[in-house]
Amino acid sequence: MGSDKTRFGLDETRIPEAWYNVAPDLKNPPAPPKAFAPDGTELGPDQIGERLASLFPMEILKQEMSAERWIDIPGAVIDVYKTYRPSPLLRARQLEKDLGLPEGVKIFYKYEGVSPAGSHKPNTAIPQAYYNKAEGITKIATETGAGQWGSAMSIAGALYGIDVEVFMVGVSYDQKPYRRILMETYGGTVHKSPSNLTESGRHVLAMDPDSTGSLGIAISEACEVAIKDPGTHYALGSVLNHVCLHQTIIGLEAIEQMALANEEPDVVVACVGGGSNFAGIAFPYYHRKLEGKSKARLLAVEPKACPTLTAGEYRYDLGDEAGMTPQMLMYTLGHDFVPAGIHAGGLRYHGDSPLVSQLVHEGEAEAVAVDQTACFAAAVQFARAEGILPAPESSHAILAAINEAKDAQAKGEDRTILFNLSGHGHFDLAAYAAYNAGELKDFDFAAGATLCDDAL
Amino acid sequence: MGSDKTRFGLDETRIPEAWYNVAPDLKNPPAPPKAFAPDGTELGPDQIGERLASLFPMEILKQEMSAERWIDIPGAVIDVYKTYRPSPLLRARQLEKDLGLPEGVKIFYKYEGVSPAGSHKPNTAIPQAYYNKAEGITKIATETGAGQWGSAMSIAGALYGIDVEVFMVGVSYDQKPYRRILMETYGGTVHKSPSNLTESGRHVLAMDPDSTGSLGIAISEACEVAIKDPGTHYALGSVLNHVCLHQTIIGLEAIEQMALANEEPDVVVACVGGGSNFAGIAFPYYHRKLEGKSKARLLAVEPKACPTLTAGEYRYDLGDEAGMTPQMLMYTLGHDFVPAGIHAGGLRYHGDSPLVSQLVHEGEAEAVAVDQTACFAAAVQFARAEGILPAPESSHAILAAINEAKDAQAKGEDRTILFNLSGHGHFDLAAYAAYNAGELKDFDFAAGATLCDDAL
Repeated sequence: MGSDKTRFGLDETRIPEAWYNVAPDLKNPPAPPKAFAPDGTELGPDQIGERLASLFPMEILKQEMSAERWIDIPGAVIDVYKTYRPSPLLRARQLEKDLGLPEGVKIFYKYEGVSPAGSHKPNTAIPQAYYNKAEGITKIATETGAGQWGSAMSIAGALYGIDVEVFMVGVSYDQKPYRRILMETYGGTVHKSPSNLTESGRHVLAMDPDSTGSLGIAISEACEVAIKDPGTHYALGSVLNHVCLHQTIIGLEAIEQMALANEEPDVVVACVGGGSNFAGIAFPYYHRKLEGKSKARLLAVEPKACPTLTAGEYRYDLGDEAGMTPQMLMYTLGHDFVPAGIHAGGLRYHGDSPLVSQLVHEGEAEAVAVDQTACFAAAVQFARAEGILPAPESSHAILAAINEAKDAQAKGEDRTILFNLSGHGHFDLAAYAAYNAGELKDFDFAAGATLCDDAL
Repeated sequence: MGSDKTRFGLDETRIPEAWYNVAPDLKNPPAPPKAFAPDGTELGPDQIGERLASLFPMEILKQEMSAERWIDIPGAVIDVYKTYRPSPLLRARQLEKDLGLPEGVKIFYKYEGVSPAGSHKPNTAIPQAYYNKAEGITKIATETGAGQWGSAMSIAGALYGIDVEVFMVGVSYDQKPYRRILMETYGGTVHKSPSNLTESGRHVLAMDPDSTGSLGIAISEACEVAIKDPGTHYALGSVLNHVCLHQTIIGLEAIEQMALANEEPDVVVACVGGGSNFAGIAFPYYHRKLEGKSKARLLAVEPKACPTLTAGEYRYDLGDEAGMTPQMLMYTLGHDFVPAGIHAGGLRYHGDSPLVSQLVHEGEAEAVAVDQTACFAAAVQFARAEGILPAPESSHAILAAINEAKDAQAKGEDRTILFNLSGHGHFDLAAYAAYNAGELKDFDFAAGATLCDDAL
């Protein structure tokens, strides 16, 4: 078994031709979303469908509800995926050496930072732009915190010739001009939220003219724009089923690449905010387990400051603060929960993907919560060993992978660990500066909310 | 001929095993460096060799002077190259469409932005760190402007366990904290130059306590540290023969990848500052021409603000302002020339690689100078078509490639264009902001010097 190689590249002819949909393979059918009229009456599936149809193209809605196991990736999407896919899979040999691991304990990582956005987000932004374009939509409205999702959507919009309008949380708009500039350079239009362009925005500004905004307000503004203009749709970068579906390209490639390495992972690790990068690498391994080809544990890693899977309740809750979205059955800390100001902004979400939540609830995936400073220490150790500076979000997966390796070593077991390095940290140097200066703190969930929008 | 594919990936087993040294294949033997004692006496080759031996490891000096055509890449270097190599080669199909090119006019690009530094610089930083480590050197001192080279050297130092001490031009140290943080996160030590740590630095500060520094001063400080400490060497990121040698990995891969595309380029394009990324892609094609397998024109692109190859003199000149380096035969605008403040900081060099200069002087390579604003326009067009935001330096190659395509179209000729996309622009968003805001200017060489260290 195994090889002494470091890199396991796939030929571009081997980009998977279908995404994997986990829904039909779950122990129980996924619970449907719920929504209520202003008077409290529960809406029927048709009414919910109608509401969603004003936000998303039909092909995306079909994927959201699909019971098909494999969904073909359109050729035009594969062509654009080829800008950066297949992404590399590497063995972290120097990190293994630095950790002093025995021969039987191995660490592999799939690296999504080679995308033009520097993260896995284009994996879903590209097909979302494609399906909208195919249905004649000329504009996509979306929200962004610090700009990670907004950047990916702006790139995808540029590639398919579709306008992208981004409502960016006000405080980030002011504090993070470079992310805004990136979106604008790709042709995106970026508004500081709350804005005077929407009723939701004007309502907030009337109450508080100095509002610095929030993700909840930005979602409301983007949805309002989409609902009011038939040529405009809305797009979301995580949580939803179709987003998880698109991200499975990561795990499907990884399975091919681990075969080139003659290895099967014993544990597959990824960080979890809304759940899309974990879904991306873990769902295809869940399928492989059902096929009897894998026994891998699936390990979701979240910040202690926002421990949705490890400390949240499994119940119906809203996807946003403002109540514009339907309710979904998921692990949640409550839709009004504001996590402490950790720098892994992409992991500061009160809820989680319903599919990921269900996998955890059914005992098919594990979850662990880790501290911010330990994550940064792991990130720096990884950067100095392997050369790549990780995004703060991805550092959660690195820490958990290192902990798995140490655990195997302590127990005298062999273990092959695969983690998803979901993005690079070239846009996160302020966070590294704070870590290098010893200024970062750890936050317990119980310590409550300290909003730090710099981290969004 | 040709294929309708977009991406031409190489398997990691096909990373070239030797670099190509152009020196023995030039029409005339390369001219040796010259140096002079303080009294004006010319030093002999042995004296120059002795001086250089205090700065560089023997293997690097051998490469600098080598007459061997192929120089083996150590296995330990190939292992680290595998972190990001082979880099992708892509066909710019959407850009071709947007330009309305006929079928026979094709644009390909080799993309070096997938490296952990985001540019081609690690191609030489890695072997330089390796050879220094192999000779027992524990520390490398180097200079950096805005931090592109300093970042690559810090990464390579971390990978090989060698300390890296960077003298960073003072104004950039203050204005570009993120680049400094990047170097520090990899374990590099970064000093604001001029510093109190060296005689050169103290001398400058005594004359002008508020000095904001310059690349020339920073080179002097780094060389002084290397000369005074036997365990410390110096490293340079461009210009020198061994740097060009290491960069040929780019062109050697590209030749393999163009074969996968069933195409031979008619013109090979790269930007030129010190010359290393041009050498990297063009020298292997020069060799291919000598073999009779290629008729490609080799096109070097430089900024009009610093038109070394197109408006400089071909003569012996110093490599730095302060006179710490030997004199080299090259195109130069004079070692005291300070180029206008364009944002392509990597192209603001008064001289050029002696090997690249000789190729141009012997009529084997062409050079063209272009305007800054036209480069940014090309960069934005490219980003919106192909998804990748280019570094301002690389945008010079993009503009020249587009101009080649338009020229072929106008003449009704077929033409296959290959350019080197030497890096991404994720660290250059201030420059894009200025461009988007219409604030960028063009500078003629004649317009003289307007120092803008923000661009360094």
